[in-house]
Amino acid sequence: MRLSPPGKLRFQQTQQFDITFGGAEANVAIGLSYLNEPSSIISCVPDNPIGKQALHFFQGHGVDVQHIQQTGDRLGIYYLENGALSRSSQVVYDRDHSAFGTLPTGSIDWEKIFEQADWLHWSGITPAVSASAAALTLEALKAARKAGVTISTDLNYRHKLWNYGIPPNEIMPELVEYCDVIIGDVNASKVFFDLAVPGWRFTMDPDYEKYQQFVSLLMQRFPQCKTVAITHRGSLSASDNRWSAMIADREQFKHSPIHELNGIIDRIGAGDSFTAGIIYGLRNFGTDLQKTINFAAATSALKHSILGDASLLSVEEILPLMEGDSSGRVAR
Amino acid sequence: MRLSPPGKLRFQQTQQFDITFGGAEANVAIGLSYLNEPSSIISCVPDNPIGKQALHFFQGHGVDVQHIQQTGDRLGIYYLENGALSRSSQVVYDRDHSAFGTLPTGSIDWEKIFEQADWLHWSGITPAVSASAAALTLEALKAARKAGVTISTDLNYRHKLWNYGIPPNEIMPELVEYCDVIIGDVNASKVFFDLAVPGWRFTMDPDYEKYQQFVSLLMQRFPQCKTVAITHRGSLSASDNRWSAMIADREQFKHSPIHELNGIIDRIGAGDSFTAGIIYGLRNFGTDLQKTINFAAATSALKHSILGDASLLSVEEILPLMEGDSSGRVAR
Amino acid sequence: MRLSPPGKLRFQQTQQFDITFGGAEANVAIGLSYLNEPSSIISCVPDNPIGKQALHFFQGHGVDVQHIQQTGDRLGIYYLENGALSRSSQVVYDRDHSAFGTLPTGSIDWEKIFEQADWLHWSGITPAVSASAAALTLEALKAARKAGVTISTDLNYRHKLWNYGIPPNEIMPELVEYCDVIIGDVNASKVFFDLAVPGWRFTMDPDYEKYQQFVSLLMQRFPQCKTVAITHRGSLSASDNRWSAMIADREQFKHSPIHELNGIIDRIGAGDSFTAGIIYGLRNFGTDLQKTINFAAATSALKHSILGDASLLSVEEILPLMEGDSSGRVAR
Amino acid sequence: MRLSPPGKLRFQQTQQFDITFGGAEANVAIGLSYLNEPSSIISCVPDNPIGKQALHFFQGHGVDVQHIQQTGDRLGIYYLENGALSRSSQVVYDRDHSAFGTLPTGSIDWEKIFEQADWLHWSGITPAVSASAAALTLEALKAARKAGVTISTDLNYRHKLWNYGIPPNEIMPELVEYCDVIIGDVNASKVFFDLAVPGWRFTMDPDYEKYQQFVSLLMQRFPQCKTVAITHRGSLSASDNRWSAMIADREQFKHSPIHELNGIIDRIGAGDSFTAGIIYGLRNFGTDLQKTINFAAATSALKHSILGDASLLSVEEILPLMEGDSSGRVAR
Amino acid sequence: MRLSPPGKLRFQQTQQFDITFGGAEANVAIGLSYLNEPSSIISCVPDNPIGKQALHFFQGHGVDVQHIQQTGDRLGIYYLENGALSRSSQVVYDRDHSAFGTLPTGSIDWEKIFEQADWLHWSGITPAVSASAAALTLEALKAARKAGVTISTDLNYRHKLWNYGIPPNEIMPELVEYCDVIIGDVNASKVFFDLAVPGWRFTMDPDYEKYQQFVSLLMQRFPQCKTVAITHRGSLSASDNRWSAMIADREQFKHSPIHELNGIIDRIGAGDSFTAGIIYGLRNFGTDLQKTINFAAATSALKHSILGDASLLSVEEILPLMEGDSSGRVAR
Amino acid sequence: MRLSPPGKLRFQQTQQFDITFGGAEANVAIGLSYLNEPSSIISCVPDNPIGKQALHFFQGHGVDVQHIQQTGDRLGIYYLENGALSRSSQVVYDRDHSAFGTLPTGSIDWEKIFEQADWLHWSGITPAVSASAAALTLEALKAARKAGVTISTDLNYRHKLWNYGIPPNEIMPELVEYCDVIIGDVNASKVFFDLAVPGWRFTMDPDYEKYQQFVSLLMQRFPQCKTVAITHRGSLSASDNRWSAMIADREQFKHSPIHELNGIIDRIGAGDSFTAGIIYGLRNFGTDLQKTINFAAATSALKHSILGDASLLSVEEILPLMEGDSSGRVAR
Repeated sequence: MRLSPPGKLRFQQTQQFDITFGGAEANVAIGLSYLNEPSSIISCVPDNPIGKQALHFFQGHGVDVQHIQQTGDRLGIYYLENGALSRSSQVVYDRDHSAFGTLPTGSIDWEKIFEQADWLHWSGITPAVSASAAALTLEALKAARKAGVTISTDLNYRHKLWNYGIPPNEIMPELVEYCDVIIGDVNASKVFFDLAVPGWRFTMDPDYEKYQQFVSLLMQRFPQCKTVAITHRGSLSASDNRWSAMIADREQFKHSPIHELNGIIDRIGAGDSFTAGIIYGLRNFGTDLQKTINFAAATSALKHSILGDASLLSVEEILPLMEGDSSGRVAR
Repeated sequence: MRLSPPGKLRFQQTQQFDITFGGAEANVAIGLSYLNEPSSIISCVPDNPIGKQALHFFQGHGVDVQHIQQTGDRLGIYYLENGALSRSSQVVYDRDHSAFGTLPTGSIDWEKIFEQADWLHWSGITPAVSASAAALTLEALKAARKAGVTISTDLNYRHKLWNYGIPPNEIMPELVEYCDVIIGDVNASKVFFDLAVPGWRFTMDPDYEKYQQFVSLLMQRFPQCKTVAITHRGSLSASDNRWSAMIADREQFKHSPIHELNGIIDRIGAGDSFTAGIIYGLRNFGTDLQKTINFAAATSALKHSILGDASLLSVEEILPLMEGDSSGRVAR
Repeated sequence: MRLSPPGKLRFQQTQQFDITFGGAEANVAIGLSYLNEPSSIISCVPDNPIGKQALHFFQGHGVDVQHIQQTGDRLGIYYLENGALSRSSQVVYDRDHSAFGTLPTGSIDWEKIFEQADWLHWSGITPAVSASAAALTLEALKAARKAGVTISTDLNYRHKLWNYGIPPNEIMPELVEYCDVIIGDVNASKVFFDLAVPGWRFTMDPDYEKYQQFVSLLMQRFPQCKTVAITHRGSLSASDNRWSAMIADREQFKHSPIHELNGIIDRIGAGDSFTAGIIYGLRNFGTDLQKTINFAAATSALKHSILGDASLLSVEEILPLMEGDSSGRVAR
Repeated sequence: MRLSPPGKLRFQQTQQFDITFGGAEANVAIGLSYLNEPSSIISCVPDNPIGKQALHFFQGHGVDVQHIQQTGDRLGIYYLENGALSRSSQVVYDRDHSAFGTLPTGSIDWEKIFEQADWLHWSGITPAVSASAAALTLEALKAARKAGVTISTDLNYRHKLWNYGIPPNEIMPELVEYCDVIIGDVNASKVFFDLAVPGWRFTMDPDYEKYQQFVSLLMQRFPQCKTVAITHRGSLSASDNRWSAMIADREQFKHSPIHELNGIIDRIGAGDSFTAGIIYGLRNFGTDLQKTINFAAATSALKHSILGDASLLSVEEILPLMEGDSSGRVAR
Repeated sequence: MRLSPPGKLRFQQTQQFDITFGGAEANVAIGLSYLNEPSSIISCVPDNPIGKQALHFFQGHGVDVQHIQQTGDRLGIYYLENGALSRSSQVVYDRDHSAFGTLPTGSIDWEKIFEQADWLHWSGITPAVSASAAALTLEALKAARKAGVTISTDLNYRHKLWNYGIPPNEIMPELVEYCDVIIGDVNASKVFFDLAVPGWRFTMDPDYEKYQQFVSLLMQRFPQCKTVAITHRGSLSASDNRWSAMIADREQFKHSPIHELNGIIDRIGAGDSFTAGIIYGLRNFGTDLQKTINFAAATSALKHSILGDASLLSVEEILPLMEGDSSGRVAR
Repeated sequence: MRLSPPGKLRFQQTQQFDITFGGAEANVAIGLSYLNEPSSIISCVPDNPIGKQALHFFQGHGVDVQHIQQTGDRLGIYYLENGALSRSSQVVYDRDHSAFGTLPTGSIDWEKIFEQADWLHWSGITPAVSASAAALTLEALKAARKAGVTISTDLNYRHKLWNYGIPPNEIMPELVEYCDVIIGDVNASKVFFDLAVPGWRFTMDPDYEKYQQFVSLLMQRFPQCKTVAITHRGSLSASDNRWSAMIADREQFKHSPIHELNGIIDRIGAGDSFTAGIIYGLRNFGTDLQKTINFAAATSALKHSILGDASLLSVEEILPLMEGDSSGRVAR
């Protein structure tokens, strides 16, 4: 559950929280649902009205919730204060002891789940929550591999979350080895895999040569991986960003145009909407990586205009921007 | 009635609609009322509390409502989702079978109305609503001409609305022939009158030469017309636009400066506020078309800062921008 | 008390006012409280629930309210309509006859107050309210000087307020002579002291040479003054500004970088947050005026992202921007 | 202007005020407008956006505002905290120095106003505001008498308001002598006219015998008076009341049934809605005082279900309760 | 879609509508979903964002929407103003030309639908919408009978809706003949079937003898009918009601206790929640009609505490009231 | 932190939570602050913006927060859904692992705290939170006894909270032995002390004889105890209650009148406001227990009219009801 002061209010000013529900994988699931790709969340919420609020939210957005168990003590929370100008958005995590983080291995019937699925997506946030969540992730990956479903991951490093004692570089490498598609991240790769391109400094717009080297290193390190996709955010301020993305398989390296995002509504979940766009593209545009990266970049650029963690965007809404029309003219 | 999710929420996210009332001609009437030009709406709303809400709204903004009849089945609705960044605003029309659209000819005593009026304004949205509305428009124009009042029109082509069987090009030419002032539109003129300047492609800033040719064609086609005014919108995104305007009579062609509109609040009704500005200018600035176009462009540029369909702007508020001060400094 | 239509609504559109409390000196006090500098407001509110609302507000933000008396007739009000694009914010003052404005001299035990204080800040808005408020200010200044506390002032000229019969140039010079630190203002100095740099026209970005001459004139005029600080606002529109600041003592003249503020949330109180930053800097950064001006400029630049009159910013939040990082990246 | 915390919040809890506009006479005017009796307010608001908000409000509710002048310093305010259970509603007046209270005699062209009117209503709140308002009231009464219009008054004693030095018993008797219809009040009559029925103690339900004596005394005291009407409120709590009313001329004394009001939404303005009902009844039901009192009691009973000062009730909505159907069944 | 002014505001006062979605049958479906009885809506919404809002709402509440087609012109609307005290709630229908009302016979594959269902519920509102909706209902009933599913109906007479030319007494009798369970209504039975108990006048609490005669008449008239259930509402005011219910088969007649409902939140949809309770009871409590009627009466009594058309109540929440504990003590 | 859906919305319906802060002891502290009894909270919140929100709230209401430490992981939460009619309010606790619950013994300098205090109040909720909180409570009690401050407790049994392994009957007796004043509770006394009056069944209005026996048993069991006070709630529904209270010392037994509470706004925290009233009474009314119990019962009766956990009531507001005037007439 995400709790945010309305509009641009600071925590100290608000007497109300706007409620939405999310989480890296759930955001991808909702994003795919709006792209008409049926999706299902495998998770756990407590058997109380707050847990049911979460189910209500996901169901409303068309995501299958039959694999969300109702047990455990509490729903994980994060508090979000929306930034503006050069004032950063603030995230306060309150996710320890969540129902999901305490779900033990063996409590999910993976085999049955994968009978009706052909794709599994997970993110680096899941094993960051607790040791049991990391073990559960490994269990899922083994079952998914066995069932032959495609596996994607978003590395998603959150420094504040990895606090249960085992460092991420002892956990993530094994998990990522199962993945066919990696949503990469330069910083996460340094922390998780000690993998870095020498002499690379962050620039407002992407340095494609360096990114290409980075992808090569990542693909060398993970032989199972067939596709790597990465986003690049140039932050002028909390309100104004420049946004673009790249994709590569073992032969091609393609990048999207740069989207200028002035007057951002909500940038949380942009990466997850990108992942949804990548999964959609890989499933629908075949080997046309240029089309896939343009679609995913447009999806995630548009996500910045939507309040909440998830992208609620149809394919029809994404196509014009993907094809270069950023004008946002009234549809009437 | 216009129903919109608050702020930048999408339809799927909202549990509330903000209510406002408008319509092309009503927006002009409110705009004129704030410019201290008395105005009256000739229309029809159902005799139920929703119809009375509309009357309440117009009255509150100082518009005379004695010529709004209370009869018919329903108030026409349009739903508006406000866009942001490159996400377009969405308009969903639900105007069929509205009280106004079913008002028959003969039900309005035009003669009496025009005894106390010296200007009639109508827009291309009215005859788009229904065959009877088109007939009523013609009836009004004939009576207005007879009474010697000045007639202005805003061509206002809405593709989604013209769906009652008779194509606009069989209706609009006859109606426009009565008009002294035309708020022109390139696209509408193509559809309504098959009138186009060859080799003209849309550019972000206006191509004045082409516009001048366009005005010539329009004036040739409609000998009664004495003045043509046109706006030009360059859409960088749903949030950021460039806005300017032109005016011409049979001798002069004048254009306003270009207004940069970054962080638009609401662009719906900008054209109507422009019309209000034009009517104000023609009535108050005599033949000084430069002054008129600068005033109308400033009015409609400022409209983008106001939520709702109508411009609630006094002459005093418009003058600084009209004279080049766009700084928006605090008035204290 | 400040009453504002929510968001960007106009007065004519709203059925609700957002309530906040402020005033030039109170805003500085709150700003300092968030910078961990204990502060206390010396003022007066009526002994009714509205006065208590004000106390509640200041207390909540950590300001000491024991020196706010509860007597008098009414709480002063100002109404604020937030501007956007080139539509100016509107301020309507309703401050006459306020409890504070009618507090007589002799009603405050300055000696006791200054036993526990080492800094007194006042602004030009206080003597503008009434003759008694001006007399009270003089009384305070004499007592503060006697007690050896540092005195700062923000000139803050408000044309609409000075309406009780004595012109500001008969009052302000005497008061400012007591001050160690002046937050200067070109326009105010012209009105208050008839002090002006010849041939100086306003430019979007600051003309440092002219400002340096201006500071010299001001320091010559007020020998007690040790430090002058000034902000410079370049208004592209009500939404987009360029913001910077300068500071000088009798030896140095330093200026901050220019901050681009696109998508301003609320610019009211920016000057007061700047003052809070200056006071913080002078107390914590010693003679490093560059550090002080960068800190104060960053504080006030960030203030533009916060709704309400006061800056609710911790030192930790200000440092990144002060050190040049305007990216506003999510803190997670 | 009335400013209230939303719902049942206390002043100390709210960050927003709901805005509505009222005043004893204005409430009567709105109430009459909804009863299809054209009404006009004679008053004064400042020439600023807050004054215009008031005009907008009255116009929207169909009241003629052409006799509201725009001049003076400020709009009078009252703050209202809504009570519940046994917690009283709190009213904080901030009406001193209001535009209306400072309007001098001679500034209104009464003669012209009464050319188009046949009824003048005023209340005891008006002369309570200031000496000039009392003088203006007398001026109006003389002109009204001369023009032959019917005059009604609501005694409406507000202890907190009468504070400008002249006691009400030196002002009110002269004013009331002009009145044809008096909305009486036991407490006010004691204060204004030193008129009391001996041995009368307040009871939850009305003691009709005592009320009849009271009416006699009042009519003796004011020979011009033809009709007296009075309401009786039995307060079980701020939420639950019993409500009834009486009317008398020099021959008859009639009372309404008692209305049980459980779950009151807003009781402010109930007396004014009663006055509107009385005026409507006297104008439409002739000498049938029973009908008039039942109508006025039903109108004011229903007012308790409406937020804000004014009754927004049509005749059609009042008739069922007037005829004894209190069921409030859904109209569908 | 139901659009309501927030709280107890009147239409003339509101600038916002609260949005919820309902309809007699949809309300029953949601009610059953919260009782853990899987339910599915067979209907039609337009293929636009407003139609999708409806889908989102029903999905969120756990109802299957796969049989809701997306076609047609508009979503039917009703406006609801919530009453209080003796002020009635107002319903304004705007349902003509709705997507559902224009769906032709033959457009639904009933056979397939009934393969996975064992119960069909419809209400008298459906054939009231249009001739085609009536024909569709008949088609559904024939298919349901053929498939052997149990059929229930709620007579639900809405005078304002039956306006397409064929009177209800020419349509309803044939449709009701298919039903196993009838939620009866005295008024509807008079209009639809000309069936009445002589000498029966409405009383605040139910006259069980008369009701028993009424049930006998109804069961004689419809031999297929096995169970009849009826609610009885005694309206003290819009806020306070007395609520009870009866059930009968061909042998027993049982009634619930009377529930006192003081401080009603929303009474719309109470009948539908009763129907959900009846269906739940008949499916889970076997022939124990006393248990069924107590459960259904408790369900619908509790519905009055919930805003919106639907009852969001679990079995666990209903049991205490069903067993006589009306105390509503805090669950902690 | 308490998070509640606005108004009477259910968890499944809301997209916003109203935020307030409370806790048994904090509510008493706020209540006392409004009664002009200085109070200070000894507690712990995390050093993050959510913890600071809590500080801001308590400070705003005039409570001293210097003894609230800023450390630990999270702020405890409880979710509250407000009931109505016979629908119970729902409380969902999420308080495990809260900053306060993990504060170790030895971390608070009790000696210094009690130098400036003469009263310590604690409730049975504190030792319910965790073993360390129970130990901390004992530590506080010993230090308080040593410092000679008066000690009061509110037994406050919350079944859902006592879940850390040690049953309350092993912890509470030792703690209560230190107390001079006990806010008693029949159910809690059974669970904590196995203390019960034989043959006593709950009745809607209090059975004073049984209560007197209960007080005797309690006083026998706890020789240190000088005063016992108890409330009695008769719940007609979640909206309508009957409320009264009793107090006894070793000589007298006094009870308040019964308050009818129809249309309750918020009953949470009523017991805490009662405690504040008792403490106020014992400190201000000496041995006049009748006055004390009437004051405390009136305070807590009025609390039901206030949203949030705390009573925001001045002595002046309580006196009328204490003296028997429940009419809630408008104060103007």
